[in-house]
Amino acid sequence: MAIGMPKLQPLSPVPGFKTAAIACGIKANGQKDLLMVSMAPNTTVAGLFTQNLVVAAPVTLCKERLPKGIAQALIVNSGNANVANGPQGMETAKTITQTVANTLEIPTDTVFTASTGVIGETLPIEKPLSAIPKLTAALTHDGWLEAATAIMTTDTYPKAISKKVVIDGKNITITGIAKGAGMIHPNMATLLAFIFTDAAITSPALQTILNEAIEASFNSISVDGDTSTNDTLMAFASGLAENNLIEDPHSATVVPLVDAINDICQELAQWLIRDGEGVSKFVTINVVGAKNQTEAKQVAMSVARSPLVKTALAGCDPNWGRILCAIGYAGVEFNVEEIDIYLGDVQIVKGGVRDPNYKEEQGQEVMNQEEITIAIDLKSGVAKRTIWSCDLTHDYIKINADYRS
Amino acid sequence: MAIGMPKLQPLSPVPGFKTAAIACGIKANGQKDLLMVSMAPNTTVAGLFTQNLVVAAPVTLCKERLPKGIAQALIVNSGNANVANGPQGMETAKTITQTVANTLEIPTDTVFTASTGVIGETLPIEKPLSAIPKLTAALTHDGWLEAATAIMTTDTYPKAISKKVVIDGKNITITGIAKGAGMIHPNMATLLAFIFTDAAITSPALQTILNEAIEASFNSISVDGDTSTNDTLMAFASGLAENNLIEDPHSATVVPLVDAINDICQELAQWLIRDGEGVSKFVTINVVGAKNQTEAKQVAMSVARSPLVKTALAGCDPNWGRILCAIGYAGVEFNVEEIDIYLGDVQIVKGGVRDPNYKEEQGQEVMNQEEITIAIDLKSGVAKRTIWSCDLTHDYIKINADYRS
Repeated sequence: MAIGMPKLQPLSPVPGFKTAAIACGIKANGQKDLLMVSMAPNTTVAGLFTQNLVVAAPVTLCKERLPKGIAQALIVNSGNANVANGPQGMETAKTITQTVANTLEIPTDTVFTASTGVIGETLPIEKPLSAIPKLTAALTHDGWLEAATAIMTTDTYPKAISKKVVIDGKNITITGIAKGAGMIHPNMATLLAFIFTDAAITSPALQTILNEAIEASFNSISVDGDTSTNDTLMAFASGLAENNLIEDPHSATVVPLVDAINDICQELAQWLIRDGEGVSKFVTINVVGAKNQTEAKQVAMSVARSPLVKTALAGCDPNWGRILCAIGYAGVEFNVEEIDIYLGDVQIVKGGVRDPNYKEEQGQEVMNQEEITIAIDLKSGVAKRTIWSCDLTHDYIKINADYRS
Repeated sequence: MAIGMPKLQPLSPVPGFKTAAIACGIKANGQKDLLMVSMAPNTTVAGLFTQNLVVAAPVTLCKERLPKGIAQALIVNSGNANVANGPQGMETAKTITQTVANTLEIPTDTVFTASTGVIGETLPIEKPLSAIPKLTAALTHDGWLEAATAIMTTDTYPKAISKKVVIDGKNITITGIAKGAGMIHPNMATLLAFIFTDAAITSPALQTILNEAIEASFNSISVDGDTSTNDTLMAFASGLAENNLIEDPHSATVVPLVDAINDICQELAQWLIRDGEGVSKFVTINVVGAKNQTEAKQVAMSVARSPLVKTALAGCDPNWGRILCAIGYAGVEFNVEEIDIYLGDVQIVKGGVRDPNYKEEQGQEVMNQEEITIAIDLKSGVAKRTIWSCDLTHDYIKINADYRS
């Protein structure tokens, strides 16, 4: 189950990047599980990674290589997370990137990597290694949909999006791909997301843009509250658009690029929710009137994570008392006698109690919809925050009780 | 679904207390939903209540009346939580206790009350009010099982337990009742629990014993991470056992009473988990080697709350990577390369990686059992903590998606 599979817009080739995807046999079901991206020399790179203390070997390797700021290839496998395999896991990640480097004749430390799938099982290294020559031969400019497909785990459809902007009179393309679909919770969501552009931009400037884009996108979603060991968001810029090299991410000329990257991150993040495991409702939680953004987020996340709110959503039950309850245990101080809560356009709580004008049929009508907005006014200040979440369904249990079988 | 319905031991009458239970019509299904307990004059009382900012009217009323330290009656309804009904909710709670006081001819401020059920709906006050005379006429010494039954919501069986101890050569009886079964998470669990004893003990001493009993019992369980608006744990002591009045809760002579109250709280708490909504596994999470108790609890709760761990448990899947992952995002600093994890007696993680001797069949054998222990050694210190939790099943979704229909 998943909702509202977005109509996939045409994906644009990005000068400086070629992709190839293959089923190398890590996934038992024969689906594509290995992605290679080759990049023009001097491609700049930025990245953000999981805050889980337990991290996958590929994450550790990427963090080691990031400071140099140059990328020439990316290799991603799905089906195995390469976590908790000790020195052998790191050896595996290094050997795979080394083999990519040898095949493409590029320095090893310009090869980045990511893995997603089951934690704690040994990655059968011979499978990706033997596939790398085939991948190299298959590299193409227009394989983005296959690229997005090869990184999927329990996702039901590939997630990819392209945008074009003009800077310095030069056409710039940005294409992003991402995968979910469980363990979705900041910081960051469980996700792999990669953004590719031909803009000319320094690595530090790209990093700043990424840092700022993540908060209102991948750090604003929650499926199940689990923060994974492999979360990776990376951006790569080939520079082939030949705009003036961007060094200041906050200069006026860069705004279209920043907006496009923000939009891509936000759309991909929302797709992760729509395609979340077992999801039947897409829920937008708007908290306003908070003392500060942190508290606004804390209240929104408390509602987003509550199993009782999530199951009420799954059952189309306007059991709004559970929303009020989850706000109450968020750990934020506010005056209960003042708060307002809306389900869609319908006010359900006014001054901390049931709105006397509220009728159950009104709430029911909102709950029957596939996309639901919950708005909460804490009446404590002017800060606000939006979080995207989902319901908790039988299918989530089904998917996760038998994930490995 | 629920597991291991404990074999109910005989329940002991407690001198100084009489109970009566009735179906007054708050529950649409005609089941018992109103409990009255009458108490000897000068019964002392202690209480602990939800830490949710949104609190039920009965909780507010009990907190107002607690400082006086004297109780003569308790009235509890199930089927409606009397939360978020504004001034009307408080008026309802006051009127019900006033009516009990009038009928029993006792001071109103010695009547305590609790409610459990749906949040935000108006409690139909005429139903309990009209039942109070009938309840008064039905008061009996041996109605503890019915008492435990009348406070149930989604519980599948009543929870009650009696113990006897001797202090100063006097026989002392302690009988406790409790209900769950969703919204179970500290602080406190969603629960109503009431403990009755004929010990002679001051209200402050009883409060201290209760404060100390709750941590290793009701504050050590989690079903779904939701902290309710109505959590109430109260203890009442009639003094009719005629032991020397206990003023110091830490004196040597009081140890048997303290132990009995601790045991009752712990057993009731574990029953709440066993009868948790949709529960098919009873899970004990032991964290050892932590820097301090707070961190030990934080790690245990992170594992207890993880939907991915809980669904793996439901599916009998020894997907231990999810346990490691949940430890990693608990927000506690430790050295990943040192930690050990055991499933039952089987070591699965050694020094942060899969134990080379671990075989999947061993983990599978443990996971097939109804009672499972997960042990985690953080190797960071000497503090430890035990938490009881459960799995997340289809039945949890079923129960909660349609709770009100």
